[in-house]
Amino acid sequence: MVKGKKKSKDKVNIVPLGGVGEIGKNMFVIHYKDEILVLDAGLMFPEEELLGVDMVIPDISYLLEYKDKIKAIILTHGHEDHIGALPYIIPQLNGVSIFGTKLTLGLVESKLEEFELNSEVDLYEIRSGEELRFGSLTTRFFSTNHSIPDSVGVIITTPVGNIVYTSDFKLDYTPVQGDITDFHTLAEIGKEGVLVALSDSTNAERPGYTSSEKKVGESLKDIFYSVEGRIIIVTFATNVHRIQQIFNAASFSGRKVAVDGWNMLKVVRIAQDLGFLNIAPNTLIGLEEIKNYPLNEVVILTTGTQGEPLSALTRLATANHRKMQIIPGDTVVIAATPIPGNEKLVARTIDNLFRRGANVIYEPISGVHVSGHGSQEELKLMLNLLRPEYLIPVHGEYRHLIHHANLAENLGIDRENIFVVENGTVMEFTPSSGRVLTSVPSDGVYVDGLGVGDVGSVVLRDRHVLAKDGIFIVIVTINSSTKTIVSGPDIVSRGFVYVRESEELLVEARENVNRVLDKLINKNMLEWSTIKANIKDTIGKFLWDKTGRKPMILPIIVEV
Amino acid sequence: MVKGKKKSKDKVNIVPLGGVGEIGKNMFVIHYKDEILVLDAGLMFPEEELLGVDMVIPDISYLLEYKDKIKAIILTHGHEDHIGALPYIIPQLNGVSIFGTKLTLGLVESKLEEFELNSEVDLYEIRSGEELRFGSLTTRFFSTNHSIPDSVGVIITTPVGNIVYTSDFKLDYTPVQGDITDFHTLAEIGKEGVLVALSDSTNAERPGYTSSEKKVGESLKDIFYSVEGRIIIVTFATNVHRIQQIFNAASFSGRKVAVDGWNMLKVVRIAQDLGFLNIAPNTLIGLEEIKNYPLNEVVILTTGTQGEPLSALTRLATANHRKMQIIPGDTVVIAATPIPGNEKLVARTIDNLFRRGANVIYEPISGVHVSGHGSQEELKLMLNLLRPEYLIPVHGEYRHLIHHANLAENLGIDRENIFVVENGTVMEFTPSSGRVLTSVPSDGVYVDGLGVGDVGSVVLRDRHVLAKDGIFIVIVTINSSTKTIVSGPDIVSRGFVYVRESEELLVEARENVNRVLDKLINKNMLEWSTIKANIKDTIGKFLWDKTGRKPMILPIIVEV
Repeated sequence: MVKGKKKSKDKVNIVPLGGVGEIGKNMFVIHYKDEILVLDAGLMFPEEELLGVDMVIPDISYLLEYKDKIKAIILTHGHEDHIGALPYIIPQLNGVSIFGTKLTLGLVESKLEEFELNSEVDLYEIRSGEELRFGSLTTRFFSTNHSIPDSVGVIITTPVGNIVYTSDFKLDYTPVQGDITDFHTLAEIGKEGVLVALSDSTNAERPGYTSSEKKVGESLKDIFYSVEGRIIIVTFATNVHRIQQIFNAASFSGRKVAVDGWNMLKVVRIAQDLGFLNIAPNTLIGLEEIKNYPLNEVVILTTGTQGEPLSALTRLATANHRKMQIIPGDTVVIAATPIPGNEKLVARTIDNLFRRGANVIYEPISGVHVSGHGSQEELKLMLNLLRPEYLIPVHGEYRHLIHHANLAENLGIDRENIFVVENGTVMEFTPSSGRVLTSVPSDGVYVDGLGVGDVGSVVLRDRHVLAKDGIFIVIVTINSSTKTIVSGPDIVSRGFVYVRESEELLVEARENVNRVLDKLINKNMLEWSTIKANIKDTIGKFLWDKTGRKPMILPIIVEV
Repeated sequence: MVKGKKKSKDKVNIVPLGGVGEIGKNMFVIHYKDEILVLDAGLMFPEEELLGVDMVIPDISYLLEYKDKIKAIILTHGHEDHIGALPYIIPQLNGVSIFGTKLTLGLVESKLEEFELNSEVDLYEIRSGEELRFGSLTTRFFSTNHSIPDSVGVIITTPVGNIVYTSDFKLDYTPVQGDITDFHTLAEIGKEGVLVALSDSTNAERPGYTSSEKKVGESLKDIFYSVEGRIIIVTFATNVHRIQQIFNAASFSGRKVAVDGWNMLKVVRIAQDLGFLNIAPNTLIGLEEIKNYPLNEVVILTTGTQGEPLSALTRLATANHRKMQIIPGDTVVIAATPIPGNEKLVARTIDNLFRRGANVIYEPISGVHVSGHGSQEELKLMLNLLRPEYLIPVHGEYRHLIHHANLAENLGIDRENIFVVENGTVMEFTPSSGRVLTSVPSDGVYVDGLGVGDVGSVVLRDRHVLAKDGIFIVIVTINSSTKTIVSGPDIVSRGFVYVRESEELLVEARENVNRVLDKLINKNMLEWSTIKANIKDTIGKFLWDKTGRKPMILPIIVEV
């Protein structure tokens, strides 16, 4: 092991480009002199006011500035909020090396294939316990428990001191498969000395301990055994542990499992290929085979935990699935909880499933879901093991970071050594000090269709106006030499009023435009900008008075 | 008391025009021969996909058809989902009589004043225990407990049998003020015989009992006493019980209370005037007076429990309040839970309050909120008291109705006697039978600005397209006699791409339009519809290939 010789004038910078003050688009930069390590490269699904935006990725201006110093992108696990930005940033970083565990790389490879980017990067498999050297930086990995197998945390040994990035974790003493959290390495590094810890804050509001994933297995066995009809079960496609337990419960209760949904099929295939999913012989069947079995011998495993409009479960709930439909007496098990913001969509899907005669098991009380993140007591144990000089609470909205900071303060970490920061904050650490240095651009970059970063505040502001009250277009053709109106004013509106029932309003609006134009012609004020401003103003007031709405008003002046 | 003489050929119809399969816009119609009673007239706040819609009210086509038979609108309490539709339906019902308790009418009067509708209706105050006769129908009212004072349920005695409408209720054995639920009347009517019960399903998913509102008072006292700095507290403006307890806790801890927010001020004034709020002398101060008191003697009571963008609390969180600002060390108490769908907005407000240095108390665990609706054991007790022949679970999304039906079935009510129905279902009951007869229009009517019902599926579909990808307008001026292009094609887009950075795309689009026009001119195909369809098609495909987006494409052909 390379121990950091602490030189008192040495400095290391830590920059969260995403993943603090939010849950999503995780990306943490460790910058020591000429060496940069990037920890994770995630995406975030947009807040609902980002109309039309498909996803948000970190702003990597900071990385582009120091492109040549980047030694590696290290991925801690295969969730979208840790790997999802890769297809968008790889083309900008020409030839970066990516490190991750076997399953993580399996998922990354499949993603890069979709984007035809496989040849642009080198992928290196890492193992828990392994040590890698990047110039004067050394990394080690410790296994953690999370809602996807093959998760790790990272220890970065720098000449300034040790930095530990827990990434997402819970402490599961009875995991479904794989190692338990590597307490020995954590204890060892804690004893050696940790300068800075970046630790998961997702569940910092939640008292106590998070239950073991094994608990879900027990609940599933009970349900699969007692339910009389067919079972349709949804969970997160990447929760391979849970998928394993679904297969186990199916075997236990003498049922076959048919897998449906593009993403679920993909993950099941990858996990099986890489040895993370062990399916008993004769358990997995094709969706087209379910008709050969009595209903009480069938489990259908598919996607749609979040009530996504195009998911298999939502299609079943609205009788729009191409290959199957709900049969009254089906039991639907939603082995997940809604991600904040999706509550209504999930509730609506549940309502519609009930409408079709299914029974739906979804309550937290049913035991079919546990969190993948540690609760307060687990966060405390992590801090007690690591005993860091400085703490950066990460993976959390602002209140989660604050709660994590409060916990840490109660454990004896000085409040001024706890950095509750926003994305883009550059923090500088020496062996004996830590401070906020400056901040760098870190507003998310919006991905909309094929466009990355071409939708910004102007476009979004327009979309908001259009969404709320639609658009009202006034077209006038003017002869610029004779200064007369050749054609129009014509009016076209969309998303404003139902035109057939509002003819009177449109006639009045046209009269208003005519009055404005007459006045301007009389005054010989026929500059485009003047005409447009006057129409906007007059029609805006008129429509507000008549309808209480503020559509976007777009005057179009055609000159002939 | 008028006992119903059950004539076996008599029939009574019950029609929910709103309030089943949803939480909101409650309206239940009792229709016996030539007499109609309308129970409640509420609004619903729109689901988020109803872009630009301000609120949704019941479709009252059924009532308009039988306008002359309407004897009364009976209001059970003053919440918006029970009274909010009044201003929109009163003008259509010329001269309807409205019945409600004192506080309910106080709130209705204030609402009608805003809409200048006071002279259009007669308001009659009712009291718990009172009996009213409307032709062959008789009504009695029983007091209930809910998150607003002066709530009642209604017993309608018809020649066919007794109908009981519980409206929203919980069973609070230690209410803050007013009566406890009128168990004696419920027991009496249960003994006499109940043909149909319409009972609250809101909390049918929740096991056990709902806590007493008094519990909140205890938590508030603890918090007010132990907090050192200033307290800012928000709750629902109509929760007068809780407001009472906030004043009590303030007196107890030696603090003054300043009230802020238009709606909160209004309700406090009405509740005080009508005797529902008792404020200790020298406790209420003006917002401008708070500067005269040390921070630890001040409580500010305001609105914003749901993170509403324009509410006082959100303005404080974003430092946009005109009259005050968060001082680090303030404690903000959110004495409410987010209504489903508002979780993200509330969380963001909490995050921003923490960012400004406030401490925020909001967790369910803190005891600052209890529900106003009874949980499963309370629903069971209600059914055991009433022992109805038929049950219509109301006030709930579909899954809540199903859970309520399951509870009722477990209590021994035949499943076929439980009507889990959608809005608009006409149910017919005789003394010995109940069945679904037909259904009447019941899709919600959208209120957008001043327009009631003028926004429908066409307008909303357009708003969705505009919201997602914006609009792309192509303007061409054609000389219809010479068949030549006089001007254009010009392109205007909004909400699609940031134009300054997409000039190349627009140039290419223009070239595409030119090619389409040349082709059509050569073929002499210059009908508007042909030109428009061709432009839409070509440009639609072009933009999808280039951007992965599908803006609304609007070709405008000007003929000169």
